[in-house]
Amino acid sequence: MNTGTLQRNRQAAGNVPAPHRYEQLAELIVDTIDNGTLAPGERLPSVRAVSEQHGISISTVLQAYRLLEDRGVLVARPQSGFYVAATQGGTLALPSASRLRSKASTVSISGAVAALLEHASNPALVPLGCAVPDAALLRSHRLDLALARAARQHGDRHNVYGTPRGDPRLRREISRRAMRIGHALSPDDVVITNGCTEAFTLALSAVARPGDTIAVESPTYFGFLHTLEVLGLKVLELPTDPVEGIHIEAFARLLDAGPVAACLLSSSFSNPLGVSMPDARKRELLALLARHGVPLIEDDVYGDIHFARERPTPFIALDGGANTLYCSSFSKSLAPGYRVGWIAPGKYAQQVVDRKLAFSLCSPVLPQVALADFLASGAYDAHMRRLRRLLEENLRHLTRAIEASFPAETRVSRPAGGFALWVELPRGFDSRALFDAALELGICFAPGDVFSASRRFRNCLRLSAGWRWSERIEEGVRRLGQLAGRQHRS
Amino acid sequence: MNTGTLQRNRQAAGNVPAPHRYEQLAELIVDTIDNGTLAPGERLPSVRAVSEQHGISISTVLQAYRLLEDRGVLVARPQSGFYVAATQGGTLALPSASRLRSKASTVSISGAVAALLEHASNPALVPLGCAVPDAALLRSHRLDLALARAARQHGDRHNVYGTPRGDPRLRREISRRAMRIGHALSPDDVVITNGCTEAFTLALSAVARPGDTIAVESPTYFGFLHTLEVLGLKVLELPTDPVEGIHIEAFARLLDAGPVAACLLSSSFSNPLGVSMPDARKRELLALLARHGVPLIEDDVYGDIHFARERPTPFIALDGGANTLYCSSFSKSLAPGYRVGWIAPGKYAQQVVDRKLAFSLCSPVLPQVALADFLASGAYDAHMRRLRRLLEENLRHLTRAIEASFPAETRVSRPAGGFALWVELPRGFDSRALFDAALELGICFAPGDVFSASRRFRNCLRLSAGWRWSERIEEGVRRLGQLAGRQHRS
Repeated sequence: MNTGTLQRNRQAAGNVPAPHRYEQLAELIVDTIDNGTLAPGERLPSVRAVSEQHGISISTVLQAYRLLEDRGVLVARPQSGFYVAATQGGTLALPSASRLRSKASTVSISGAVAALLEHASNPALVPLGCAVPDAALLRSHRLDLALARAARQHGDRHNVYGTPRGDPRLRREISRRAMRIGHALSPDDVVITNGCTEAFTLALSAVARPGDTIAVESPTYFGFLHTLEVLGLKVLELPTDPVEGIHIEAFARLLDAGPVAACLLSSSFSNPLGVSMPDARKRELLALLARHGVPLIEDDVYGDIHFARERPTPFIALDGGANTLYCSSFSKSLAPGYRVGWIAPGKYAQQVVDRKLAFSLCSPVLPQVALADFLASGAYDAHMRRLRRLLEENLRHLTRAIEASFPAETRVSRPAGGFALWVELPRGFDSRALFDAALELGICFAPGDVFSASRRFRNCLRLSAGWRWSERIEEGVRRLGQLAGRQHRS
Repeated sequence: MNTGTLQRNRQAAGNVPAPHRYEQLAELIVDTIDNGTLAPGERLPSVRAVSEQHGISISTVLQAYRLLEDRGVLVARPQSGFYVAATQGGTLALPSASRLRSKASTVSISGAVAALLEHASNPALVPLGCAVPDAALLRSHRLDLALARAARQHGDRHNVYGTPRGDPRLRREISRRAMRIGHALSPDDVVITNGCTEAFTLALSAVARPGDTIAVESPTYFGFLHTLEVLGLKVLELPTDPVEGIHIEAFARLLDAGPVAACLLSSSFSNPLGVSMPDARKRELLALLARHGVPLIEDDVYGDIHFARERPTPFIALDGGANTLYCSSFSKSLAPGYRVGWIAPGKYAQQVVDRKLAFSLCSPVLPQVALADFLASGAYDAHMRRLRRLLEENLRHLTRAIEASFPAETRVSRPAGGFALWVELPRGFDSRALFDAALELGICFAPGDVFSASRRFRNCLRLSAGWRWSERIEEGVRRLGQLAGRQHRS
């Protein structure tokens, strides 16, 4: 990850007030670090020197240094000065690419998923297992007020079955925002769902029949595996690199060997590996899928949580939606409790609407109305700028805490968005044993094997940084690292 | 249906204020009609005579007569006096029992269902096609205020993923109310769903695999058929009598002939036939299903809209839940826009929770909190007393309008609850042609063939009386009857 994104995010903010002097200085320092002039661990010029050099007050320089210290870019050492922090993930290697499994398998993961989710929602545990930002970070109050207003003023009007496609105003707001993903959508292209979970469930049900095979990256989100299990679908786990994504040549060989009904991908800052495939690789994958007539179900639920100036280009923008069913939601970025997701199903629209009707008839009306009001107010952009910065800081904290406390052989992902890290320990490490030991200490995380139908990745874990960073969480990571170290040495 | 329910409902009301003198007199008259002392069409004693006989003022007697006129119990004839109205369904025969089909069939109904729902939600059409009460009848304002309060005061706290089983307080309130259906439930027995549609979808997915056969009454709710289609299930349409319900002996023979994965029934005032099987028949059906190890999926979404003093006993109360997955919702009785349903899945709890997790993760939190608050306030009981009376009046109006305008050979159901009538025209009548002609006149209803996978019942239609009764609706029924008459004669 690139610390220059601090600056670029600011530039991307558009019509925000001009930055203060100390913010301008902070951005300059970040640039200097990014372009390599200042290296990790290097001491910064003294406050006085910078003050004189730039003709600004000492307090302004101090303000800039402290801002960067808060953000984890600089480290203050007493009686010594400010130093460039070790960059995120700088001291640990990236996770290894997953290996090929050439056979599709049935899935049997529901018990493990249910058990994990129960622990992950237990507020008594240090929350490293939850793939959702804390309500305190999300600060949904403006949205909640919009809901209160809609209920009080127009409750009667909205106490009807909505259309299966969802509230027309919300679909219009979503299609307006679609310009930002680089793909034009009309309100009629969008179907509102009960979170992204219903979106990809409808998509899978629309394109596949029980017994069919669905290709996924590996490791993959356990919720995908769970839905595949319930729909009676088989899974083909594709070898995946933490930077390049799916190994396309291997996938091509698998497609030649047997039919695949769809490819299901978390496309931006994927859960759990944090991959965003480079655009060129995305195009190769789309071309491969098109050649074989295999639709792509794209889950872009983390796409709005990008730390770089631009969000990753989703697949749907690269193939013009020709072969893509695009799924997203507001659960990771604003309102997990509202359960509002959506799908742009392209040529599968009729099948998806049919299934929406059959599975849940329509979505609750008032939460949709509130979200439409919130989006129309323009508040979402400022909200996301704030949230991205907070989650980027969280990930930086989490990375440094892992570097400081896990065994030196640990590998860790370096996602450019989202709020989860994939942590790989040496082969033979048992994250299930770590999970049990951690629960004893009041710490929850997601053990690696729930991210695979073949229960691989037992030496891995996913740690989430969706909660407001705190002493308690930092201490939790530290103790987890110590536990891992003890287990590793024993 | 029994006009005495007016009185009994009042008695059942509990702690309401004592009735006025004119209301007491009205109840006495209703009793006199119910016990046969006054027959349909008979003239009532003059206002003066009753005044003298009971020692009450003439205006009080007039008030009582007018109240009963408003409710459709009496008819005023100018210069003549008040007469007992023809009782509901009194002049037309009941629909005939449906016939046996001995083979299960695949379902292909989604296009017809989607088209019907689109017309049914078009506010420009006279709304005889909608199986949901009008927002003006439902008057959800208190619930909406509870939602506004919850959002404003506790939005942050609830902006999290709920548990897949649903809000604990709502489950407690629902289980408290379960005493009224005669079956004890604990909060842990209940899973909250996105309306009853998700409830029966989860139930079907939990007990059946694609290709399996599901037995339903015939005609049956088209939403059932649609979900069966999407889940790849076959349907076995059971011969059904409008009074006795499913023909159990025929079902027994079918069960001997081939496997059935589940029986799916709308159990109280079924949609569209209006059946509530007598308890003895229910027990026979349960015994038959138990012998064959076939679970019963019971949809009791209309059960709270009973006109008699007591609601029908649901199957779950008769078998203690041993073999029943009980589904319900608040969509027909309070809040279609909120999409809150529930299921008591009994021994299939784990499978149902697994599927809830896989299909939609969890339900939106704030609507559940609002509904829990509303139920805890005790407001639901008064709400339902009011709504039952309104819907009973609506059905009476609709029945009389049908009697007055449809061909004399028309048969019509006489449900003791709910708000829909099943109208059967002579064999050869084409309700699809009527549907098209009615749309031209701005009138929507549900043609009979969407209630059957084999597209039977083309000579039938379902008319709903969920909208506030009005000149416009009365006129719509009248014109529909005239259209039907012209088509019948031609």
